[in-house]
Amino acid sequence: MAQKRRVLLTIAYDGTDYSGFALQKTSPKPTIEGLVNHAIHALTGEEVCVIGASRTDAGVHALGNVAVFDTESPIPPEKMCFALNPLLPHDVRIISSRAVDKDFHPRHVPCLKTYRYHILNAPFDIPTRMRYVHRVPMKLDVDRMQEGALFLEGEHDFTSFCSVATQAENHVRKIEKILMKKSELSDKIFVDEESDDISEIILEITGNGFLYNMVRIIAGTLIQVGTGARNPEDVKTMLEAKDRRAAGPTAPPQGLVLNCLKFTEF
Amino acid sequence: MAQKRRVLLTIAYDGTDYSGFALQKTSPKPTIEGLVNHAIHALTGEEVCVIGASRTDAGVHALGNVAVFDTESPIPPEKMCFALNPLLPHDVRIISSRAVDKDFHPRHVPCLKTYRYHILNAPFDIPTRMRYVHRVPMKLDVDRMQEGALFLEGEHDFTSFCSVATQAENHVRKIEKILMKKSELSDKIFVDEESDDISEIILEITGNGFLYNMVRIIAGTLIQVGTGARNPEDVKTMLEAKDRRAAGPTAPPQGLVLNCLKFTEF
Repeated sequence: MAQKRRVLLTIAYDGTDYSGFALQKTSPKPTIEGLVNHAIHALTGEEVCVIGASRTDAGVHALGNVAVFDTESPIPPEKMCFALNPLLPHDVRIISSRAVDKDFHPRHVPCLKTYRYHILNAPFDIPTRMRYVHRVPMKLDVDRMQEGALFLEGEHDFTSFCSVATQAENHVRKIEKILMKKSELSDKIFVDEESDDISEIILEITGNGFLYNMVRIIAGTLIQVGTGARNPEDVKTMLEAKDRRAAGPTAPPQGLVLNCLKFTEF
Repeated sequence: MAQKRRVLLTIAYDGTDYSGFALQKTSPKPTIEGLVNHAIHALTGEEVCVIGASRTDAGVHALGNVAVFDTESPIPPEKMCFALNPLLPHDVRIISSRAVDKDFHPRHVPCLKTYRYHILNAPFDIPTRMRYVHRVPMKLDVDRMQEGALFLEGEHDFTSFCSVATQAENHVRKIEKILMKKSELSDKIFVDEESDDISEIILEITGNGFLYNMVRIIAGTLIQVGTGARNPEDVKTMLEAKDRRAAGPTAPPQGLVLNCLKFTEF
């Protein structure tokens, strides 16, 4: 009998046309996991269920999500990505593949995840960015947002920044770094000097784990801080409340990208 | 009878799902012009055919294409954009609208157009960029590309850089400025230090007019210069040949964006 080995896939996708990462019994659109399972089956003949690191929501994108599966296929693990890509739609790509330890579980090993939330601060939609941003027409003060964001750094109980639908019992997580970046689209997207009032604001957040909707609630809250609806120091009070109703709204999924995962002890 | 006035629209679109700007008798997908005509009809009840400044190809994007039309509608011209947008698909947006002189014709008045051609220089596809870039896996030397590009600046006969299907008789155009920009995606898209070999290279080109497929042939040629398949000074020889076969291939449409138009005497 051929030897089983565990293969790790790094997966990038445009989440617009999918019902999220995790396989569901019924979903209006295909799921990333379903497509990857299907591609592995088409390649190896084996029935597999990949174990995903991050079950991103419907509409959320990823540049470096991770999944593992076990296979007896003779295809070298590092070549697996080239064989799988032709079996997947173009908006789902296996960036790389490699062998890992047989007991490597992407949700049980220590890991740092980095997400980015993209906000288009502009008076009108930009069609070539609309799949990847949440547009806010009111002028945002990025310095205020950064000031509010800093209250979230470190280890906290993030109950206020977690969907009430969560199944997690422990709401303590550690945010290593939270950074607001402003990229002037007038330089990047437009060459027109009339487009000075357009910028893309990126919330970049790295932590050891995130609760259900946590990054999107943080984004929704910091947007309120940026417009002036809330004060930066309100973020501290929200954390202390340990009540979802204390924080701001959940920002929509299309602005969110799971950028990368780093397995810290690996 | 109500007075006719001419309204100028600035139009942005994601060209992926359209058969280009110009209305066609038959086309596999809708056209931007067809959609805009339809929206104006739905708003005003008038049968109009807008006059477009740039008839972009299927799959080409725009941030600031321009079209004009005549109307007797009492809606103030500068409010027209707000009334038209709800009547258009989300990937076609009227950025602004305003009244212009009755004889203003966007293809007859002197104008500077700026295009950008986006090249993703990466060993793999990035799903969240694939609608907007042409991916080249071979490492590109941007300095070589800039060196080659400079031969194209100024007034030249661009026959070698024009599709043989052109209807234009005069092939002399003036390129005001041609610039290669390299944006490190490792900073912008990825936060991962392993993605050092990924960059987005942007060809930015401004001129008083462009022949059929001209920017895409320039892009295809400069990519050959960037890989080393051609020398920078070959671009000079190509220009002098006045023969389409002398230049490189036509790069695909999805990397191209019509960035903006400036009516110089307006």
